[in-house]
Amino acid sequence: MIESLKQQVFAANQRIVRSGLVTGTFGNVSGIDRGRGLVVIKPSGVGYGVLKAVNMVVVSVESGDVVGGTLRPSSDTPTHLVLYRAFPDIGGIVHTHSLYATAWAQARREIPALGSTHADYFNGPVPCTRPMTDEEIALDYETNTGQVIVERFADLDPSDFPAVLVANHGPFCWGSSSEEAVDHAIYTEHIARLASETLAIDPSVPPIGSALLNRHFRRKHGPAAYYGQR
Amino acid sequence: MIESLKQQVFAANQRIVRSGLVTGTFGNVSGIDRGRGLVVIKPSGVGYGVLKAVNMVVVSVESGDVVGGTLRPSSDTPTHLVLYRAFPDIGGIVHTHSLYATAWAQARREIPALGSTHADYFNGPVPCTRPMTDEEIALDYETNTGQVIVERFADLDPSDFPAVLVANHGPFCWGSSSEEAVDHAIYTEHIARLASETLAIDPSVPPIGSALLNRHFRRKHGPAAYYGQR
Amino acid sequence: MIESLKQQVFAANQRIVRSGLVTGTFGNVSGIDRGRGLVVIKPSGVGYGVLKAVNMVVVSVESGDVVGGTLRPSSDTPTHLVLYRAFPDIGGIVHTHSLYATAWAQARREIPALGSTHADYFNGPVPCTRPMTDEEIALDYETNTGQVIVERFADLDPSDFPAVLVANHGPFCWGSSSEEAVDHAIYTEHIARLASETLAIDPSVPPIGSALLNRHFRRKHGPAAYYGQR
Amino acid sequence: MIESLKQQVFAANQRIVRSGLVTGTFGNVSGIDRGRGLVVIKPSGVGYGVLKAVNMVVVSVESGDVVGGTLRPSSDTPTHLVLYRAFPDIGGIVHTHSLYATAWAQARREIPALGSTHADYFNGPVPCTRPMTDEEIALDYETNTGQVIVERFADLDPSDFPAVLVANHGPFCWGSSSEEAVDHAIYTEHIARLASETLAIDPSVPPIGSALLNRHFRRKHGPAAYYGQR
Repeated sequence: MIESLKQQVFAANQRIVRSGLVTGTFGNVSGIDRGRGLVVIKPSGVGYGVLKAVNMVVVSVESGDVVGGTLRPSSDTPTHLVLYRAFPDIGGIVHTHSLYATAWAQARREIPALGSTHADYFNGPVPCTRPMTDEEIALDYETNTGQVIVERFADLDPSDFPAVLVANHGPFCWGSSSEEAVDHAIYTEHIARLASETLAIDPSVPPIGSALLNRHFRRKHGPAAYYGQR
Repeated sequence: MIESLKQQVFAANQRIVRSGLVTGTFGNVSGIDRGRGLVVIKPSGVGYGVLKAVNMVVVSVESGDVVGGTLRPSSDTPTHLVLYRAFPDIGGIVHTHSLYATAWAQARREIPALGSTHADYFNGPVPCTRPMTDEEIALDYETNTGQVIVERFADLDPSDFPAVLVANHGPFCWGSSSEEAVDHAIYTEHIARLASETLAIDPSVPPIGSALLNRHFRRKHGPAAYYGQR
Repeated sequence: MIESLKQQVFAANQRIVRSGLVTGTFGNVSGIDRGRGLVVIKPSGVGYGVLKAVNMVVVSVESGDVVGGTLRPSSDTPTHLVLYRAFPDIGGIVHTHSLYATAWAQARREIPALGSTHADYFNGPVPCTRPMTDEEIALDYETNTGQVIVERFADLDPSDFPAVLVANHGPFCWGSSSEEAVDHAIYTEHIARLASETLAIDPSVPPIGSALLNRHFRRKHGPAAYYGQR
Repeated sequence: MIESLKQQVFAANQRIVRSGLVTGTFGNVSGIDRGRGLVVIKPSGVGYGVLKAVNMVVVSVESGDVVGGTLRPSSDTPTHLVLYRAFPDIGGIVHTHSLYATAWAQARREIPALGSTHADYFNGPVPCTRPMTDEEIALDYETNTGQVIVERFADLDPSDFPAVLVANHGPFCWGSSSEEAVDHAIYTEHIARLASETLAIDPSVPPIGSALLNRHFRRKHGPAAYYGQR
């Protein structure tokens, strides 16, 4: 079964490249087997062109130890592990430096909900973390990256907001599987670019009201959802 | 004959993906058989990669009932039906969340006519609906989306304006067939981006005069058209 | 020999599509056989996907009469003819509605020389015509489009400026052949986009001085050119 | 061994095209064999579509004389030679007119460090040269282009900053090999675009602090690096 998860995570890593979210070796996708407490993640700094499913690294979600694979896991692995521990319902995580989502992260600004595309996936603005302190950066940087995300979600439900912007860094996105996490990474990038192009037309445009926000979010999420097939 | 329309509508749905107008499963194309009162439309939330002509859903334009196909029709179907009833000369409709047209919709601004490319297809600014009220959103949202479009066209001829921006949502485009509706969706996106890039150079540039607007629109439309082949 | 020119012009028409300069059926390329006084040009409104070399239309540069081919020539043919008559050294013309060059044309602004890329091809700003009068638009519009270009070049040498922006319309580009005209259309679009992105960073950046302008232009043009192979 | 370097440099020239950094024949890549004092570089003005490994030109780094190949070397060769002489640890150089890096060069502005993507590769802002004087442009222009780069690096370590913007011209990038130089050209373009899109959202966003800058730069560079495989 871990082989099947390695295949899924490998395919998801390839898909973020095909979807234009990756420059160079930036970015990584992971998936979790909750039953066995194992996370599968991309190895660190390996070019997407030479990556194989067999290169995926298996890590214990509890201890962070590598328990399968011969390569070092992504340097962002501690961030993924913090998120898997804090958000028990997520099954996959994607981190990219995709252009527009990263620009919003660098601007340290949450992305306002300006239309129905945004409301289809986020139940409010795309949240942004606070900048990290020098101490948080100096020691256990990647773990602390996970911690500021969890801190930002103190009053938010990860299933209402499938992505976060880490200030001065870039987006982390999640979903019920690594495949859905990639969907959300693609949508987050589209929503980020839509917001940039909207504010270029009119910098003073206000966010949409809660009626439209709820209508679209509830079309796709929760018991009253009526988008897609039964 | 409905099989032929299903093929056309399927091909048109594939073409909006190839043309770069689609992210994820956003967007849908429909076509109508006026003689039989039947609308063919994309099923809801089905990935474009797995879509087949046989999956197209057949709906009665009068009742809105599904009369062919095994899947649920696009959640935007009620909007399409309102437009087919109100605009008797249109044969196909395209809805997308394409980047620049959606940005203008999110900015709640009509697209001003800034040059001959625009005037080749629109006999004035690309119209934008008013924002919908909370009541219109809460009940029969998709039907009411069609109604605010029809309201916006109270004094406009749909053959003079082959697209509309739904405020905070995105463009709906139409034509004599689903294929021509896709042409208009592509041109609307190009015109929207041209307007954004023009106003980035000079935010104060005025719209073109009526002489140039009419010349270009009449080159391609109406009895004095001289563009294309006889 | 006219068959060879038809092949060249057909290939050049395909290349503007491959180069991303074309949306829909916008744009056209022509070439001239100066010895025989014949211009070969794209037919009007024919989709690039179905275009064949045999569809190219042959027109007399003197009379404007169609002397070969079964289709109607591009509606912009009169503009091309005016340019071939006024600029005796040019061998090919490209007209497109490419995104950034058209945005500058819609803004009615010449493109300032902001760097060496620009100076490699233009010996000063990319010129822009004055807007046409209502009378010029109403009667013989396409011929008058050519006339305002020629008027703009009263004190300019077409070999120093291989493109012009027609106000509120888009770029016309030329070269010694239809192939070189396409090169210049590609470079003009790149230069236009570079200028937009530069002014987005700093709207007050001044044009480059004449020393850099001349150095780069003369690297590639005239007797002291030293770029490329002997 | 020079044949192997010609193959590497040829492959690197092809890769800058595939990576979208090249319009027309703009741009060139070189590599050096330090042991033999030989630089391999693209020939001047040859289209990338017809370029072959055998066309690469071999030049003496000391004298600048062509010692292998039948074509003229890139007109930018003197710039490359100045850099190889001044920066003894670099093994390859890439020059492009890529869109966003060139826009920053045309704006004569260093690119501020706004996030971790930037800090992964540059230990501070991407430096920009001063504009060249008329005298420097008039005589030995390409050599002087190298000199203003070296002047800019009087207090900078080329291994801390793998690229420079030449004011009003474009980026020169380097690395331990021509292949790594291409990596850096790709990252520089991504970082430049990220900065443009970030400042479009908030023109007043400050650079990141030294803690984040050092953390990311040292993740990938120097003895404490822990990114990638051992």
